[in-house]
Amino acid sequence: MPSNPVVSPLLLDLIGVFAFALSGGLVAVRKRLDLFGVLVLAGATGLGGGVLRDLLIGVTPPLGISDWRLVATALAAGLVTFVYHPGVERLSRLVKVLDAVGLALFAVGGALLALARPGIPPLAAIIVGTITAVGGGALRDVLVGQVPEVLRRELYALPALLGSTIVVVAYHVGFISPLVVWGSAALVFGIRMVAIVLHLNAPQPFRLGDPR
Amino acid sequence: MPSNPVVSPLLLDLIGVFAFALSGGLVAVRKRLDLFGVLVLAGATGLGGGVLRDLLIGVTPPLGISDWRLVATALAAGLVTFVYHPGVERLSRLVKVLDAVGLALFAVGGALLALARPGIPPLAAIIVGTITAVGGGALRDVLVGQVPEVLRRELYALPALLGSTIVVVAYHVGFISPLVVWGSAALVFGIRMVAIVLHLNAPQPFRLGDPR
Amino acid sequence: MPSNPVVSPLLLDLIGVFAFALSGGLVAVRKRLDLFGVLVLAGATGLGGGVLRDLLIGVTPPLGISDWRLVATALAAGLVTFVYHPGVERLSRLVKVLDAVGLALFAVGGALLALARPGIPPLAAIIVGTITAVGGGALRDVLVGQVPEVLRRELYALPALLGSTIVVVAYHVGFISPLVVWGSAALVFGIRMVAIVLHLNAPQPFRLGDPR
Repeated sequence: MPSNPVVSPLLLDLIGVFAFALSGGLVAVRKRLDLFGVLVLAGATGLGGGVLRDLLIGVTPPLGISDWRLVATALAAGLVTFVYHPGVERLSRLVKVLDAVGLALFAVGGALLALARPGIPPLAAIIVGTITAVGGGALRDVLVGQVPEVLRRELYALPALLGSTIVVVAYHVGFISPLVVWGSAALVFGIRMVAIVLHLNAPQPFRLGDPR
Repeated sequence: MPSNPVVSPLLLDLIGVFAFALSGGLVAVRKRLDLFGVLVLAGATGLGGGVLRDLLIGVTPPLGISDWRLVATALAAGLVTFVYHPGVERLSRLVKVLDAVGLALFAVGGALLALARPGIPPLAAIIVGTITAVGGGALRDVLVGQVPEVLRRELYALPALLGSTIVVVAYHVGFISPLVVWGSAALVFGIRMVAIVLHLNAPQPFRLGDPR
Repeated sequence: MPSNPVVSPLLLDLIGVFAFALSGGLVAVRKRLDLFGVLVLAGATGLGGGVLRDLLIGVTPPLGISDWRLVATALAAGLVTFVYHPGVERLSRLVKVLDAVGLALFAVGGALLALARPGIPPLAAIIVGTITAVGGGALRDVLVGQVPEVLRRELYALPALLGSTIVVVAYHVGFISPLVVWGSAALVFGIRMVAIVLHLNAPQPFRLGDPR
C-alpha cells in the first residue's frame, strides 16, 4: 500500500479538498463574509478534515498545510465561489451536493492514508476515514455558528462510515483495487444524495415531553 | 507506573467514557437528533477528551479511536440513551450528574496516563488531566451550539484541576496508590455535585455597566 | 536558528500570550463569567494558538501546557482582567487592540518556532505562523458562541499571513534579524489597527439576492 497505492490518495484529496472548499466558500458567501473570510472558510473546510486526519495518525506537519497543491486547490475554490456563485436560493442545495462529494472522497481517501501508516489498527483506520470525511464540514459549521451537518437529521456519518469500512476491510482481505476505492466513494455519494433528496432520516428517540 | 500502574487507566477510561457518552447521548435526545446524531454526539463526548489527551501527549493513533472497547462503550452508551431516557424535565439534571462522573474519572485517569508517558513534566500532566476532563463536555456543547459547561457559573474546571493535581503530586512524592486515585476521583465528583446542588459559583467580576 | 535564534521565541510568546489572555479575560468579563470562567477563557485564548501550533509541528507536550512561565502568564492576565477592567462600553475596543498585539507576535513567533523544527517546509511554516496567530482568538470566540474575528469583515488573517510570510522568506534568503522580526510584528499590528480604525474590509461577493 505505501509503496504502490491502488489509487493516488493525492488525487482523492485534491478533488475532495476542492469540493469541500467550494462548500465552505458558498457558506461564507451566504453569511456575507468578505473576500478573506471566504478564503479562510474555504481553506478551513477544504483542509480541516485532512489536517485532523494527519494529527490523529501522527503525520506532522499535516499535508493540508505543507503540500502547496492542496493549499492552492482550497484557495482556488474559495476564489471561484467568491467570483461566481449562484443566487441565494440555490446556494444551500449546492453546498449539500459539494459536501457530499467531499464526504465520499475523504471517507475513502482518509482510510487509505491511515492504512498506509504503520501501526494503525483497522478500527482506527475506519474511524480516521470517517472523521476525515465529517471533520472539515463540522469545522465549517462550528465556525459560522450552525449545528454541524453530521448531527442533523439526514444520513451523513453513516455513509462515510460505510465507505471507510469497505475500503479497510477490502484492504485487509487483499481485495483492494481502484474499482473498490472508486466504487466505495460512489456508494457514499449515492447514499448521501438519496438521503438529501428523500429527506431520509434515521429514527428519532421516542419522546413523551417536549424538547427544551 | 507504565509497568505496574496503581489503577488500570483503562478501567477509569471505560467508566468515564460511558458516563460522558451517556451525557452526550442525552443532550442529543434533548436536541431531538436522530439515531446517528445521538451516536455521533455520544461518541464525540465520550471519546473526545481522551483523544485530545492523546494528541497532547503524542499518542497516535489516540486510544479513543483505536481501542474497540472504548469505541464500543461509547456507542453502547449512545444506544442506551436512544432507547431509554427519562422525561425531558429530568434530562438536564441527569446530564450534569453523568458529566460529573466523567469529569472526575477523566481528571484522574488523564493525569495517570500522562504520567505514564516519558518526558511529560508535572505541570503538563496536571493540565492534560484537566483538559481530558473538560474536553469531551466542551466538544459536546460546542457541537450543539451551547456555551460549554466549563465556562458556566458553577465550579467545574477547579475540581478537575484539583483531582489532577493531587494525583500528579502524589505520584511524584511516591504516595500514589489506588486509594489516592479513587479518593481523588471521589473528591472531584463530590465537589462538583455540591457545586451543582448548592449553585456554588466563584465570584464574578465587579461591574459598573451592563453586559453587552 | 535552533542553536542561535535571532529573537527569543519565548519572549514573543510571553507577550503574545499575555495580550491574548487579556483579550480572553475581557470577553469573559463581558459575558459575565465567574472567576474560573475568566481564567479558563484567558488560558484557552492565550495558550490555544501555541498549543495548536505545537500539535501541527509535532511538539508534544505543547509548550503552552508544559512551560510554567507561559501558563502563569496566561493565568496572571486572567486575574488582571478579573480584578481590573474598564467599563463595558470600552471593553469591546480594548479586546480588539489586545487581540491585534497577540496576532502580530504569534504570527511572527509561530513562524519562527516552525522554522526551528527540522522537516517543516516553508509553506507549512507560513501557515503554522498564521494559524498560531488566529487560533487562540478563534477558540475564544467559538467557546463563547460568537463568529470568530478571523471571519468578520475587517482585515485579520491577511496581516498575520503577511507577517508570517516575511519572516519565513527572510529566514530562507538569510536576511532574518531582530529588526525583521520586530518590524514584521509591528507591520502586522499596524495594518490590523488601521483596519479596525478605518473599518477596512476586503471586497464582498457580488449578490443579487438576500442572505439567508
